[in-house]
Amino acid sequence: MTDISYSTMILAAAVAFALTVILGYPSIPVLRRLKAGQSIREDAPKSHMVKAGTPTMGGVFILAAIILAALFVGGHGKEMLVLVFATLAFGAVGFLDDFIKVVLKRNLGLKEKPKMLLLVLFGLLLAIAQLKFGSTGTYVWIPFVNIDVKFGFLYVPFIVFVVAAMTNAVNFTDGLDGLASGVTLPVALVLAITAIGSGFGPAGVFAGAVAGACAGFLVHNHKPAKVFMGDTGSLALGGAITAVAVMTNTTMILPIIGFVYVAEIGSVVIQIFVCRRTRKRGEEKRVFKRTPIHHHFEECGWSEVKVVLVFSLISAALSILGLIIMR
Amino acid sequence: MTDISYSTMILAAAVAFALTVILGYPSIPVLRRLKAGQSIREDAPKSHMVKAGTPTMGGVFILAAIILAALFVGGHGKEMLVLVFATLAFGAVGFLDDFIKVVLKRNLGLKEKPKMLLLVLFGLLLAIAQLKFGSTGTYVWIPFVNIDVKFGFLYVPFIVFVVAAMTNAVNFTDGLDGLASGVTLPVALVLAITAIGSGFGPAGVFAGAVAGACAGFLVHNHKPAKVFMGDTGSLALGGAITAVAVMTNTTMILPIIGFVYVAEIGSVVIQIFVCRRTRKRGEEKRVFKRTPIHHHFEECGWSEVKVVLVFSLISAALSILGLIIMR
Repeated sequence: MTDISYSTMILAAAVAFALTVILGYPSIPVLRRLKAGQSIREDAPKSHMVKAGTPTMGGVFILAAIILAALFVGGHGKEMLVLVFATLAFGAVGFLDDFIKVVLKRNLGLKEKPKMLLLVLFGLLLAIAQLKFGSTGTYVWIPFVNIDVKFGFLYVPFIVFVVAAMTNAVNFTDGLDGLASGVTLPVALVLAITAIGSGFGPAGVFAGAVAGACAGFLVHNHKPAKVFMGDTGSLALGGAITAVAVMTNTTMILPIIGFVYVAEIGSVVIQIFVCRRTRKRGEEKRVFKRTPIHHHFEECGWSEVKVVLVFSLISAALSILGLIIMR
Repeated sequence: MTDISYSTMILAAAVAFALTVILGYPSIPVLRRLKAGQSIREDAPKSHMVKAGTPTMGGVFILAAIILAALFVGGHGKEMLVLVFATLAFGAVGFLDDFIKVVLKRNLGLKEKPKMLLLVLFGLLLAIAQLKFGSTGTYVWIPFVNIDVKFGFLYVPFIVFVVAAMTNAVNFTDGLDGLASGVTLPVALVLAITAIGSGFGPAGVFAGAVAGACAGFLVHNHKPAKVFMGDTGSLALGGAITAVAVMTNTTMILPIIGFVYVAEIGSVVIQIFVCRRTRKRGEEKRVFKRTPIHHHFEECGWSEVKVVLVFSLISAALSILGLIIMR
C-alpha cells in the first residue's frame, strides 16, 4: 500500500459490498435458527406484525464485512485499528442488547442506563485514542467559517456527547426495511471522499468499506427484508460513522450530512418533552403521530418504501451539500 | 499498477461482483420491458413453463461488470484489451442471437450456420491477437507431461477449434437457474490463480473479474431466477474463459476444469450421433432421456437445485484438480 487514493477507497467499498452480500446467504439461516425472529413491539403498526418471523442481528455480518474489507484493502496502521476497535466496541454493545432481546427473550433488551454507560465509556476511549493516535489534537473544525477551534479540556466531553448522540440517533433510524442502510450509505460515502481528499487515507478506506457494506446489506434488507441489522448493526454503523468523523475532524458536519439521524432522535426527544409539559398542564398534546419520525410519515399514509426512499434521498442530498461545504 | 498480485485479482473479483449485483437491479426491469420473457421452447420440461415470464439477456450487465472491473483494476495494456475485445465480440454474437429471439420474436434465434461462422471468425482473430500481442507464440502447453509443444501452422486451426467448441459448450450449459454461472465460477477462479502465478497479471485480473461477475449473477439468477443470462451471457462467459486460456497458454487444461461444459456438449453430440445411427438400422435408440445432460438428470427425478449444486460442485472439484496439475 503506497499511497491511498480514491480508487483504493472504491475497492474497499466493492470488497465490503461483496462480503456483505456473500456472508448474508449463510448468516441469515443461522440468525433465523438463533431465534424465531425478533418479537415486534406490541405498540408497532399492525402492518409490521408480518415481520415477526424475520431474523435480526444482521449487523454481525455487516461488521465482519466492514472489518475484513478495511483491513484487507487499507492495511492495519494505528488509525485503521482505532476505527476497527471503535466499531467493534459499539457493535458489541448492540450485540449485547440484541442478545438479551433475542436469545434471552427479554423484549426491551439491555436497560437504558447500562447501555448509555457503555456508549459513554467507549466514546471516552475513542476521544483518548484520537488524541493519542490521531493527528488533529483537541482542534475541532467548524463549518462555514472554516476554522479549527482548539477545544482543550472540552474536547473529551464534546466527543463523548457526539458519540452518545450519534449512536443513539442511528439506533432510532433503524426501524423500516432498508432505512438505516439507505440513509447511512451516502453519509459514509461523503465521509470517505472527504477523508481521502484531506489525506486521512485509512479513514477513507474504512468509510468506503462502511458505504459498501450498507449497499450490500440493502440486497438482503430491502423490502420485504430477509434480515434486520438489529442494534448490533445500527450501533456498529453509528459508531463507525462517528469514529471516522472523530478521526478526520469532521464531527461538526454530522448534523448536516446526518440530518436524518438528527430528525429521528430529535422527533423522539421533542415528543417526550411536549407530552410531559402538556400533561402537567392537564391536556396531553403530541407533535408527531408516532415517533421516531419515520413512523409519523407511515401514519400519514406513506408506504414504507416511500418513507425509505424519501429519507434516503434527503440523506443523499444533504450529504452532497456537506461534501460541498467541506471542500 | 506496479505489479499484479493475488490480492489485485481478488479486488477485481470483488468489484465485478459488486457491479453485477448493483447493475442487476436497474437492468432487470429494463430487460423485462424489452420483452415479456424469452419464450420457453415448447419441448422443454413442463416445470420450466413457469419461467416464461423471466427476462433474459442478463449477460448484458455481466459483460459490463466484467469489462469495467477488469479495466478499472487491471489497467488497459494490450493483453487486457485483447481479452476485453474477445469477450465483447463473443458477447455480441450472443446478443445478436438473443435479439432475434427476444425482440424479433423468432424463437430459434440466429441460425446455426451464421452463428458458427461468427464464432470461427472471432476465434481466428483471437488466435492472431495472441500471436501478435501474447507471449507464448505457437507453443501449446501439454498437461501431465508438462512440456510446451510448438504447434506451428496448426496453432491457428487448433485455437479456432477450441474457441468454437468451448463457446458452444458453455452455451449448452446455460439451461437451469444458476447452472452456467455456478459451473463457470470455479473455472474462472482457477484460471485467474494460475494466470497470476505464471506472471500473466492482466489475464489473472480479467479472469478474477469473470469469477466475481459469475458470483454476482448468482444473486439474481439463483432459483427462482429473476433474470437469465441468455446467449449474450453464455457466449460472453465462454469467450472470456477461452480467451484467458488462450492468452495464458492453458487451453489444454480446459477439458479437465471445464469437464462439465464438455459433458454438456458431449451429451448432445452423442445423442444425435446414436439417434441417427440406430434410426438407419430401423430402431431409434437414445443414450440420454434428454439433452443437454442437465435435463437428463432432471428427467431422472433430480430437482433443478440438486442438478445445479452437483454440477457446480463437480466443476469446483475438477477445477481444483486442474489447479494442482498446473502447479
